[in-house]
Amino acid sequence: MNNEKVNKVNKSTEVDELSNDYPFSIVHKPIGRVDAVGKVTGKMIYAADFQFDNTTFASPVYSQYSHALIKNIDVSGALKVKGVITVLTAKDVPGSNLFGTEIKNQQIFARDKVRYYGDVVAMVIAETENIAREASEKVKVKYEPLDAVFNVREAMKKDAPKIHDDGNVAFEHRVRKGDIQEGFGEADIVLEREYKTQFVEHLYIEPESVSAKADWKGGVEIYGSIQNIFSARKTVSSALNISLNKVRIVQTPLGGSFGGKDEIMQALAARAAIAAIKTNRPCKIVYRREESIRESYKRHPYIIKYKIGAKKNGKLVALKVEIFADVGAYEATSPFVTWRSTVQCAGPYEIPNVHADVYGVYTNNTYTGAMRGFGSPQVNFAIESLIDELAEKLNISPLEIRIKNGYKDGSITTTGQVLDHKVSLMECLDKATRAINYHSKKREYMKFNKKSKVIKKGIGLACSYRGCSLGAEGKDYAGAILSIQSDGSVILSSGIAENGSGAQTVLSQIAAEVLGISMNRIRFLETDTSTTVDSGPTVASRGTLMGGNAVKKAAEYAKNTILNVASKILETSPDNLYLKDEKVISKTDSQIFITLDNVIEKCVKHNVQLCFFGWYTAPEVDWDKERGQGKAYFTYVYGCNIAEVEVDTETGKVKVTNFVSTHDVGRTINPQTAQGQIYGGVAMGLGYALLEEVEMNNGKIVNDNLDEYLIATAMDMPEITPIFVENPDIAGPFGAKSLGEPATEIVAPAIINAICNAIGRRIYELPANLEEVLLGKKLRKK
Amino acid sequence: MNNEKVNKVNKSTEVDELSNDYPFSIVHKPIGRVDAVGKVTGKMIYAADFQFDNTTFASPVYSQYSHALIKNIDVSGALKVKGVITVLTAKDVPGSNLFGTEIKNQQIFARDKVRYYGDVVAMVIAETENIAREASEKVKVKYEPLDAVFNVREAMKKDAPKIHDDGNVAFEHRVRKGDIQEGFGEADIVLEREYKTQFVEHLYIEPESVSAKADWKGGVEIYGSIQNIFSARKTVSSALNISLNKVRIVQTPLGGSFGGKDEIMQALAARAAIAAIKTNRPCKIVYRREESIRESYKRHPYIIKYKIGAKKNGKLVALKVEIFADVGAYEATSPFVTWRSTVQCAGPYEIPNVHADVYGVYTNNTYTGAMRGFGSPQVNFAIESLIDELAEKLNISPLEIRIKNGYKDGSITTTGQVLDHKVSLMECLDKATRAINYHSKKREYMKFNKKSKVIKKGIGLACSYRGCSLGAEGKDYAGAILSIQSDGSVILSSGIAENGSGAQTVLSQIAAEVLGISMNRIRFLETDTSTTVDSGPTVASRGTLMGGNAVKKAAEYAKNTILNVASKILETSPDNLYLKDEKVISKTDSQIFITLDNVIEKCVKHNVQLCFFGWYTAPEVDWDKERGQGKAYFTYVYGCNIAEVEVDTETGKVKVTNFVSTHDVGRTINPQTAQGQIYGGVAMGLGYALLEEVEMNNGKIVNDNLDEYLIATAMDMPEITPIFVENPDIAGPFGAKSLGEPATEIVAPAIINAICNAIGRRIYELPANLEEVLLGKKLRKK
Repeated sequence: MNNEKVNKVNKSTEVDELSNDYPFSIVHKPIGRVDAVGKVTGKMIYAADFQFDNTTFASPVYSQYSHALIKNIDVSGALKVKGVITVLTAKDVPGSNLFGTEIKNQQIFARDKVRYYGDVVAMVIAETENIAREASEKVKVKYEPLDAVFNVREAMKKDAPKIHDDGNVAFEHRVRKGDIQEGFGEADIVLEREYKTQFVEHLYIEPESVSAKADWKGGVEIYGSIQNIFSARKTVSSALNISLNKVRIVQTPLGGSFGGKDEIMQALAARAAIAAIKTNRPCKIVYRREESIRESYKRHPYIIKYKIGAKKNGKLVALKVEIFADVGAYEATSPFVTWRSTVQCAGPYEIPNVHADVYGVYTNNTYTGAMRGFGSPQVNFAIESLIDELAEKLNISPLEIRIKNGYKDGSITTTGQVLDHKVSLMECLDKATRAINYHSKKREYMKFNKKSKVIKKGIGLACSYRGCSLGAEGKDYAGAILSIQSDGSVILSSGIAENGSGAQTVLSQIAAEVLGISMNRIRFLETDTSTTVDSGPTVASRGTLMGGNAVKKAAEYAKNTILNVASKILETSPDNLYLKDEKVISKTDSQIFITLDNVIEKCVKHNVQLCFFGWYTAPEVDWDKERGQGKAYFTYVYGCNIAEVEVDTETGKVKVTNFVSTHDVGRTINPQTAQGQIYGGVAMGLGYALLEEVEMNNGKIVNDNLDEYLIATAMDMPEITPIFVENPDIAGPFGAKSLGEPATEIVAPAIINAICNAIGRRIYELPANLEEVLLGKKLRKK
Repeated sequence: MNNEKVNKVNKSTEVDELSNDYPFSIVHKPIGRVDAVGKVTGKMIYAADFQFDNTTFASPVYSQYSHALIKNIDVSGALKVKGVITVLTAKDVPGSNLFGTEIKNQQIFARDKVRYYGDVVAMVIAETENIAREASEKVKVKYEPLDAVFNVREAMKKDAPKIHDDGNVAFEHRVRKGDIQEGFGEADIVLEREYKTQFVEHLYIEPESVSAKADWKGGVEIYGSIQNIFSARKTVSSALNISLNKVRIVQTPLGGSFGGKDEIMQALAARAAIAAIKTNRPCKIVYRREESIRESYKRHPYIIKYKIGAKKNGKLVALKVEIFADVGAYEATSPFVTWRSTVQCAGPYEIPNVHADVYGVYTNNTYTGAMRGFGSPQVNFAIESLIDELAEKLNISPLEIRIKNGYKDGSITTTGQVLDHKVSLMECLDKATRAINYHSKKREYMKFNKKSKVIKKGIGLACSYRGCSLGAEGKDYAGAILSIQSDGSVILSSGIAENGSGAQTVLSQIAAEVLGISMNRIRFLETDTSTTVDSGPTVASRGTLMGGNAVKKAAEYAKNTILNVASKILETSPDNLYLKDEKVISKTDSQIFITLDNVIEKCVKHNVQLCFFGWYTAPEVDWDKERGQGKAYFTYVYGCNIAEVEVDTETGKVKVTNFVSTHDVGRTINPQTAQGQIYGGVAMGLGYALLEEVEMNNGKIVNDNLDEYLIATAMDMPEITPIFVENPDIAGPFGAKSLGEPATEIVAPAIINAICNAIGRRIYELPANLEEVLLGKKLRKK
């Protein structure tokens, strides 16, 4: 018994932490979320629950046109309403009215022109929310309507109405790998197909909300459901024309964001801040669902044209890609989102010759931006559909064609990057197909379908690879502060935000593991632009990977200090000591130890620094924009999803009956929260495949509330089997990579391929709703 | 011209920063306070201006006895008042009801026993302040009165009523230097005198105020006028029985504190926090002046017995000291305060044989604690009076006796410490006496007094040395965080609080100097236990010295990073570069430079860490408690104050007509705020000398508002000439030491000595009010 303990102890310190034998205490365990109690008891204070004393309330005044010039704004009627304090318009913006991630063409308040129905022309500030809303209807705006365009192909025409001065093609990306002519020359078979995807709403449960207060130093303090407080700070600072250090933004717990609470929240934060400064009273904005859906940006609809060439044996030789992304009225993060589509356009398949052109095109539709999986769900739907169809034509199985072409160690990607890490795609495919009994299910359903007239069953799979974090188009860094208090409790913070994914839990686990302490020692601070370290945006599934590395560094500095102090007490070398179970223990004799509390007491007594700062920058990447070649990301994750469906061919109703979701995450820091990511990701992907579509009628959203906008509910969900492939990555904290976005990006193609497998007909347009499944896209309504 | 520039530039980088030739840009300049506009425009949000949304209000219920057992507390009457939410008593304290700096004998709510009239028995929480106050009168407390004691000598008697279980002598300190018997044996003259000092009120302009809110994580957030938020956090954490990291205390700008907003604010913070948790609504407490004076601790009244021996030539040979400090009902920081009295009991005079005993004694008076100058104003009054009287007896001048005995380089202090730094006492004496024309004034007044019957004029001087920061009885460290934002603006923070002294300004200057930037780049954050680094209490004039060192370190790390990055751009070595005027400039050619903004841009582009952490611990000190010998402080400041007075011998009215205040501060970081310290210090010292006394009638304060408690007003103030002696100290940031407390500690003895010089009679008891000046202590009222 004693011996065993010692052995285990020795293991715990001598085994490489990237090894699967590493005896974790906290990491790799299904620890409950640190915010779970707050969430389930309803005690958590969301932005709408929070308000400053003596606050005012605001109501937006929206554009009545999808494209029009503003000739006059008459606020006198609104100002007459009792309880109205002021009405803000573009004239009230002290600094820049324009903002944007790359191109600043989005407006805090529409000044001369509206470009979509969600443009905010004015905002009424009043004593109560009801008064503000009532008065907002009394703001009279005179417009001069302009020709509008709602279709990407129309928008690209020379004589199309110009949405911005420089024309409607906002940007383009490309890939030029190999020789596409030569590639197609070698092909035994060439397929050309076009795919279309829809506008999708993020539909975070919590609509947008923000509160702002002017401080006595000429700055502002803002609390809000803001995904990226550092980006928001930039916009507020430029709108108010004050320096960044005068804008303090604190993130309230997010009731979902999924990439959605970024640009819209930047605008809301700026508007509330402008109101607070103008009225010298706090200002609170809480959106209703209709407002949220009207103003917020969506997932990009894509038109995707693929031409693929292959040898008879299924070996892919050439791919030509043309993608048209509907950017809507404003650019926002579209260049960034579509860059990923470009990099990942060929899926996880090694194709020697790839030629891709991706265009972002302005229309008068609602603008589009980042949404969970950003950039990949559209192309994954397309490439995975195409590969399946190609396999069918070649009479080889969907699995075989993927095994043949899928990335393996050392493969060269579409962008010419040699994959120098452990490539887990084949392991994902293998585990997923075994778990679901792919082959026997396929045979079983073939038999079933021969007998069954109305109900058809099918199984479909989809694969992906995905670059982790921001890649060559972003600046990739993160920081963390870990501070041990004199009673041994720990305060931890990072600029990486808790967007609902469980980041606080996972980052706390990493710190706890390094320090050998229990989770309840740690308090994770809310992200705050003034006190937590700018860590870039919390997007691109970079929280665990980047934030985790920063936290790990900070914790390791703390560990070093603790071991040093303990080594003096225990009269041994720090190298001979390790931290576990709240103790510093000798590696050579586990009976020799000192409690962590005693060490901290000693540190406090001797004024030893107990505040530590961790800073992590991502490994280098590079990108040749002209050729679309380079090391796009420093590492990648891989996945394979398999869906089983039952299709009622009389109603078009699809029931997903079973789902296996396999992802290489490097290492699960918390298997439970990781499973949660998969459950949520599958639900979102199922909605994308079958249900969700923001319908626009000349730019006006028709289904602007939950009665008409359909998402997957618990009733729609299949049994889900999450499977984690864990090949720890040297760049990740304890080997961890990314999961948030991967979890949703190949759900739809797996389901679509399953449907096609069931009904024997391909689907080229999302969502595969009743009409689509029953009739095909040509016969859909409208 | 050009040559000159280059020379200056070279100087700026090559001259040692401790040299008086160092070409400062920001430090050593009279920069306006960073909080000046907020203060003078009234925009600053003090604790009473701040409240959480939906707050409740509280009113204390005070003890009706100076010493009594609590038999029953009946809150039913109060609870019946409409708008009352709850009434708190000791029973509602979830954790420890006791708190205290060393001994925890102070009560959050008096449970079984009250020990002074300021003990809080209960607190009513209501919808409005008025309701709370009204209802607080309906709380019925049944007491069993106990014998009480209000006099230190009575309290020390064996049969005195016991205030605490262990008897009334709370603690003692001692000094045993040399051989006192032998010393007196050598003396040609021996004088024995007794001095008495009074209770003094801090009288911060802003009475106590605090707001607390429970958070959804089981913690609390507190905003308040709290001098030492880290001490308060300890008390709140122990009262709530939660870990330190769950208590977040943010300091609101202090409208004065002077050492006073410590223990009382710990209690208020805990009470508000308990209320917030119990009611699940925020709680706000704002004290009225009467409550503030009733409950808050005072400066200790001392009974001081001195026996001094000297040679005929004025050389001091022996000193015997006995001091009885009235600790009042609770110990608080009394041991710490009186320890300084012990160390400094002999003034800045080298006496080979010193024997001192200092006793802290409990009474049923209001408790006493730290107040600006803590520990020294009482003994400085005594020793400086005694030295003057001794000089008179020996017929040598007050100046001569001080020159003869005063500390010089290498002197050995009362505690046996060899002064190994530059000892500036003689320089202070020299500069002060020259500035005021001491000798000619003395002669002039002697002549004047011979002629003038009623009005008498006098001049008096007093000297001091004072240990900087906490010394051997405290833990001495400070931390700072300096974070450069992507737009080049800077966020700076430290656990060293802005207690009104200008700390934020001075610390910002130090950072600005190191980085060669303008002050308006910097935003200094409010002190916050969760995000700023615990830097110990902001007391003992340690803000500039300790906080400055921490900030300087953080700024130097930032500077190193900037120089490194700039060196790559400018293709030179970092050693060849320096920072000035927002630029990085070559030392060898001032035409070669790059703007700081460009360097920061580069840093941001390359993900260079721009957040820096500075940690400073004081040089070692040591203390032998038994012998009262050791290196009590790592460095000292020196001062000489000279007062001129006119005394109306018919009314006893003293007018201070002129005042020179000379202090060695090492280096003034900001001559303007340093002057401010002197102006305020002189006003406070003048009040101490002539006006201020908290009068207690059997423990009950008689003069509990500003109509009766007299402090110096602008009309009472003389012309003040501040003189700074600057001998930069190696331990200080840019050589700076301390000033806040020194500025007030020898004002009273200078004035008293001037009065004695004018009226030809010694004064042994403070304050020297009309009665005292006119009649002497034996004939005073009462």
